[in-house]
Amino acid sequence: MTERIVLAYSGGLDTSVAIGWIHDATGADVIACAVDVGQGGEDLEVVRQRALDCGAVEAYVADARDEFAEEYCMPALKANALYMDAYPVVSAISRPVITKHLVRAAKQFGASTVAHGCTGKGNDQVRFEVSITSLAPELKCIAPVRDLALTRDRAIEYAERKQLPIATTKNNPFSIDQNVWGRAIETGFLEDIWNEPTKDVYNYTDDPAFPPVADEVVIGFEQGVPVTIDGRPVTPLQAIQEMNRRAGAQGIGRIDIVEDRLVGIKSREVYEAPGAMALITAHQELERVTLEREQGRFKRQVGDRWTELVYDGQWFSPLKQSLDAFIEDTQRYVSGEIRLSLHGGRATVTGRRSETSLYDFSLATYDEGDAFDQSQAKGFIEIYGLAAKQAAARDVAFGNGADLTVDAAPAAGSEGAR
Amino acid sequence: MTERIVLAYSGGLDTSVAIGWIHDATGADVIACAVDVGQGGEDLEVVRQRALDCGAVEAYVADARDEFAEEYCMPALKANALYMDAYPVVSAISRPVITKHLVRAAKQFGASTVAHGCTGKGNDQVRFEVSITSLAPELKCIAPVRDLALTRDRAIEYAERKQLPIATTKNNPFSIDQNVWGRAIETGFLEDIWNEPTKDVYNYTDDPAFPPVADEVVIGFEQGVPVTIDGRPVTPLQAIQEMNRRAGAQGIGRIDIVEDRLVGIKSREVYEAPGAMALITAHQELERVTLEREQGRFKRQVGDRWTELVYDGQWFSPLKQSLDAFIEDTQRYVSGEIRLSLHGGRATVTGRRSETSLYDFSLATYDEGDAFDQSQAKGFIEIYGLAAKQAAARDVAFGNGADLTVDAAPAAGSEGAR
Amino acid sequence: MTERIVLAYSGGLDTSVAIGWIHDATGADVIACAVDVGQGGEDLEVVRQRALDCGAVEAYVADARDEFAEEYCMPALKANALYMDAYPVVSAISRPVITKHLVRAAKQFGASTVAHGCTGKGNDQVRFEVSITSLAPELKCIAPVRDLALTRDRAIEYAERKQLPIATTKNNPFSIDQNVWGRAIETGFLEDIWNEPTKDVYNYTDDPAFPPVADEVVIGFEQGVPVTIDGRPVTPLQAIQEMNRRAGAQGIGRIDIVEDRLVGIKSREVYEAPGAMALITAHQELERVTLEREQGRFKRQVGDRWTELVYDGQWFSPLKQSLDAFIEDTQRYVSGEIRLSLHGGRATVTGRRSETSLYDFSLATYDEGDAFDQSQAKGFIEIYGLAAKQAAARDVAFGNGADLTVDAAPAAGSEGAR
Amino acid sequence: MTERIVLAYSGGLDTSVAIGWIHDATGADVIACAVDVGQGGEDLEVVRQRALDCGAVEAYVADARDEFAEEYCMPALKANALYMDAYPVVSAISRPVITKHLVRAAKQFGASTVAHGCTGKGNDQVRFEVSITSLAPELKCIAPVRDLALTRDRAIEYAERKQLPIATTKNNPFSIDQNVWGRAIETGFLEDIWNEPTKDVYNYTDDPAFPPVADEVVIGFEQGVPVTIDGRPVTPLQAIQEMNRRAGAQGIGRIDIVEDRLVGIKSREVYEAPGAMALITAHQELERVTLEREQGRFKRQVGDRWTELVYDGQWFSPLKQSLDAFIEDTQRYVSGEIRLSLHGGRATVTGRRSETSLYDFSLATYDEGDAFDQSQAKGFIEIYGLAAKQAAARDVAFGNGADLTVDAAPAAGSEGAR
Repeated sequence: MTERIVLAYSGGLDTSVAIGWIHDATGADVIACAVDVGQGGEDLEVVRQRALDCGAVEAYVADARDEFAEEYCMPALKANALYMDAYPVVSAISRPVITKHLVRAAKQFGASTVAHGCTGKGNDQVRFEVSITSLAPELKCIAPVRDLALTRDRAIEYAERKQLPIATTKNNPFSIDQNVWGRAIETGFLEDIWNEPTKDVYNYTDDPAFPPVADEVVIGFEQGVPVTIDGRPVTPLQAIQEMNRRAGAQGIGRIDIVEDRLVGIKSREVYEAPGAMALITAHQELERVTLEREQGRFKRQVGDRWTELVYDGQWFSPLKQSLDAFIEDTQRYVSGEIRLSLHGGRATVTGRRSETSLYDFSLATYDEGDAFDQSQAKGFIEIYGLAAKQAAARDVAFGNGADLTVDAAPAAGSEGAR
Repeated sequence: MTERIVLAYSGGLDTSVAIGWIHDATGADVIACAVDVGQGGEDLEVVRQRALDCGAVEAYVADARDEFAEEYCMPALKANALYMDAYPVVSAISRPVITKHLVRAAKQFGASTVAHGCTGKGNDQVRFEVSITSLAPELKCIAPVRDLALTRDRAIEYAERKQLPIATTKNNPFSIDQNVWGRAIETGFLEDIWNEPTKDVYNYTDDPAFPPVADEVVIGFEQGVPVTIDGRPVTPLQAIQEMNRRAGAQGIGRIDIVEDRLVGIKSREVYEAPGAMALITAHQELERVTLEREQGRFKRQVGDRWTELVYDGQWFSPLKQSLDAFIEDTQRYVSGEIRLSLHGGRATVTGRRSETSLYDFSLATYDEGDAFDQSQAKGFIEIYGLAAKQAAARDVAFGNGADLTVDAAPAAGSEGAR
Repeated sequence: MTERIVLAYSGGLDTSVAIGWIHDATGADVIACAVDVGQGGEDLEVVRQRALDCGAVEAYVADARDEFAEEYCMPALKANALYMDAYPVVSAISRPVITKHLVRAAKQFGASTVAHGCTGKGNDQVRFEVSITSLAPELKCIAPVRDLALTRDRAIEYAERKQLPIATTKNNPFSIDQNVWGRAIETGFLEDIWNEPTKDVYNYTDDPAFPPVADEVVIGFEQGVPVTIDGRPVTPLQAIQEMNRRAGAQGIGRIDIVEDRLVGIKSREVYEAPGAMALITAHQELERVTLEREQGRFKRQVGDRWTELVYDGQWFSPLKQSLDAFIEDTQRYVSGEIRLSLHGGRATVTGRRSETSLYDFSLATYDEGDAFDQSQAKGFIEIYGLAAKQAAARDVAFGNGADLTVDAAPAAGSEGAR
Repeated sequence: MTERIVLAYSGGLDTSVAIGWIHDATGADVIACAVDVGQGGEDLEVVRQRALDCGAVEAYVADARDEFAEEYCMPALKANALYMDAYPVVSAISRPVITKHLVRAAKQFGASTVAHGCTGKGNDQVRFEVSITSLAPELKCIAPVRDLALTRDRAIEYAERKQLPIATTKNNPFSIDQNVWGRAIETGFLEDIWNEPTKDVYNYTDDPAFPPVADEVVIGFEQGVPVTIDGRPVTPLQAIQEMNRRAGAQGIGRIDIVEDRLVGIKSREVYEAPGAMALITAHQELERVTLEREQGRFKRQVGDRWTELVYDGQWFSPLKQSLDAFIEDTQRYVSGEIRLSLHGGRATVTGRRSETSLYDFSLATYDEGDAFDQSQAKGFIEIYGLAAKQAAARDVAFGNGADLTVDAAPAAGSEGAR
């Protein structure tokens, strides 16, 4: 029987050409697999038909938008996942859900290999291949661009020669990846890291310098997940979509960083993630209100490690799963409402309320009704500071203490005692 | 000989009254100690005279602005210190420098005790007292508000009765602490965490909703410290001051959070730190360009721990010092220039250049001149993913793998294969 | 109605006297609560009767040995809990289970306060009181030794005067706490940290210098919990008891360290925990065989934090619970058998086998049947080392590289090239 | 000019053959580089002559024993480096020092490439190659066994055919690597992880089951480094050598684990490191006496990360260097004496004394002279436990509190109240 290869298919030039290119190079039949993770663009039916017209023997298409929002975006939100304190792992979380469908298609159609359109120097090849072998250790992987010398110029020539039903106009100067959680833009003149992004780079966000009037929104959470917007019930997908629209109109969520790739190089990346950034801002503040201090402190470490692993293509790894168990446990009381003001590129928390809040007015207030027993403070400070005090006394004894001589005062402007 | 007590003196009503109050309660002579950490307000000479007029036997005043900027703000910048991902430890770093002068004054004037104006439920009492006993284990601490029942009403009554040279008008509804690194505002109607801050809360920043035209600035760093602004050499103090002015005019650096205090309660805090936030934004991006990946990852953990310790009053502790050694080592190559656009509440990095950059155009580019050997990727992915692959194979063997059956596809909109 | 106080009752002199002492000082009725956590000694019925004879209005006794082993010792085993890499948190895990019974007794008998026998400078007072208010925030705490000046001399005098049915002979020179997970010994001549423990310090272990013949044991685990010994099914309690006996006979599990107490001081502690140490040794090795590398690495951090929290009296805290969720998830595949040789103070792993092992002979072997594709290594090393290589090239460029000149070779014995 | 390749030369069969094998395969001249890191065996002069006799155009030999002890073993000791809590990174720390000499030789003799004898599935190939390109990014790497198909059988055949001056008897069933810090043994029947090591596996240690009389030793440290043994001054190398001899005679330091390799597989490893394990035991206890609590806690994390990096071949990486700065800072006061009893496989601390100790008898004692103010404890506990108490009250309010009903008591043996 002829070997079968499942190809991650976007409907664009490169993967349309790849259908025939792979067949020519390997003799295998190609099954196109297109997954909707909210990237917008053409109807799935159109994409499906094009795949068949380009020579795919089968086409598997799936609307995975809710699945992606619920099982991939929501864990990222609970983790407050910001790689290098900045990037909400937009592409990184879409690879595993696409992989799941690729593997499902491979099993359904009896394929032995999965093909993807990544180059050999990015993160996504790693994410795809590690995910694929994690879900189905017996599957092989191939990347036509990396392994079969499918360059862009050759793709254009091939499409024209074979009269494939796909435009071959010179492509966008940028390399773009987008889904409902955000949009990633790279290459082109952005590779000079002193260059500022131009306006045409952006698509999910309007210019924050000329915003419409401020937009106030109240987001309701249950156990870390947004469930209402301004009182109306929403699904995770709807919450992200509505926040993309409203925060995007205010120019919120533009990100421009130099980033450490998994493959050992730094790259310059621009992102837009209006909904993701607004939701993370709200979620972080709700955690400040509802998590106990030490739980919150350790969760930051766990969230950082979760984010590194997901960025590094380890979505299905054992550690990622165990970190999920930790994070899930912390979300038990992360319920309540956050009021955000969206305006001119800023998502600002202006109010928070929660039945599971640990903020206790009667302990915090300096006014009437103060329930905090200040007389306990002396004993607390004495014992809390005891270890540092002993260490300091040792420093003094061994001549390593802070210099407290008057001469040691900084010259500039210091007046000493008079 | 009469006992002597050094009092941390601000020149305001409470500490002016405290001079006499402490003397009345303890019989000790009081030495006022005022330290300029960039809080603005009255001239130090005026403050000095008022202390003497209120009964202090001596007055020690010091302009510690450069010392504070160099030895306290710069380490916080190098650590990217943001407590709970938000608060640039404004008050927390001023307590140790003030303490140093308090202890110096105590040694100079032979005092046995140091007094401060804090209440018994905040962080600052802990920071003062742990710092004091760390620098001089033999000194005792006293807090008139907490230990000698000096309430605001009693202070007003006392000042009027004794005709102290200080205004006793009803005070600001807020409790304020400020220095060159930022400004902290709390209490009053902000104790209801659903309330939005009103405009009168702010002083260091203008309203970001109505900004002047965008302001572009280029900040030059040497080993983590800002040394030029737009090409002009600056001291750390000047860098902070200039960025306070320019970022403040754009409404940058307003922060509003519910925060975990050291004493076990949550409190609502509003901060302004325009210069600090702009500098941290620039410094973080320069680190992304110059730190090696794993160094950057671990430094985030170290920075978080540094920040917790400093927030928790452990500035002089052994761990804080060892973390400083780590951070200092990481800054060796954090040199170069960052271009920021300041506008409407946003400090946006628009360019970075550095001779010590690890960004390598020839490795990163997808264009001509690509020096990255993509053929290595296969081997990398194979071995990098090997552990996850084996763990996944075990999951499959024991029935714990991802559900890949077609029926498991989400119902909503999933079309499966056709 | 008369106030009621539940007293943690051991049956010994101090707590027997405390029954009357508390009543005399507070007027409250005292309910004695004795909990068997495997400390051995008198029958619970004898203890119960003595409490009543000493004036308790009620006596609550509970055999909590299985509960302690299952819900407290097993989590400690899964965490490989060794405080400061040494101490298996023997006393620390017994406080929360005792507290649970104290609080249950308080609720059953309508008490408003719980009393315990701890001093004011140890960890256990904190563990008891934080646990008590965590389980029942409305309960108050009192400690007769710390708060009511109940010294040992006064206790002896009181017992003799009141003719309490308890021996008042001069007590053991040591302070001892023991349960099925181990035994803690402190004070006395051990407070001089240059002194070696004498033989009379030990009770759970025989002298390792004169061991019987080696004892080989095979421990079977299911998901981190011992379920068989030498093929015979055991409960957690039985596993600990049998290993206490067999490892104790070989002198295994003696520990002698200087330890950081929660209250800011260092203390010298001697422990015996033959069963715990043998089980942890076996469990650690089974984890090496069954945990994925990164999962194992992060679990070490989680285990350390778990141990610190438990040592610090935070058993019922939110972070502890979330860490439990992480640890529990890691134990899914920690199943299999470990063969230990017990001899002369050493518990040595001599074999391991597991159906869920990640050790793969065909990947590991250097002999026939090697399935590892060595040709992948070049690509892996190239990309894996890329970041370090670039950083190193920078070091060289800026003169910070390693000194490689021939003169830099160490003089002593270096011959250089000839 | 003919290309030149520096070969890491041991004097054994495989690398002796590699001299000619590389020349035949590449045409390059081979320079043999032998480094003494305390592995024992033949005299360096003999090794040097054999290299020349086997066809090397030059031979570089270096006695790096002191360099290795001072600059590689001592940092490992300060870090208490135990990979997976067990393995003292014996081979991992020798690779960078050997690499330094390989690179020095390459520079001295104008070589373009460095060759090593590792296979393609171990850690050492990665350690060598990452270190080499870190020290000299321009150098290439080659491994005859991995890249030039040099199998053992071919080596024997080659040596016999070319009449090389080296024995070709069937080799040791094990693969061995040794230096002054320890000895590593793998392969052979040990690849079955249920098999116990046989006696012939060991060489640095005698059987702990039949020990000579106990040996008491006092080790003096200065800033983390051993400087005296039983009062006699020693260099680091001498300290390791003497402890190897004395601890080895008692059978101390045998290790047998399943270990996670960097290349994604688990392998079974047996080690002997009598001196290293005895010194680490002593050093850890001295740290318990001299490090402040939080410093000690964080250092454990730093030490673990240091150990992972070194195991993973990142000795010269930026993060490793920054961790060194942290560790070095912590060692400032790690000075004093530790008394160890060495006997029957156990190195037991029996005493510690230090002028920089933080153990304070007057704070720790329960006897006369107690300086600890127990009255402070109430306030400490109240505030220390406040956050947990509030979180617990929330648990109770939402029905998630601990089950305290009497029925919830474990059935087995619980008697409840009577």
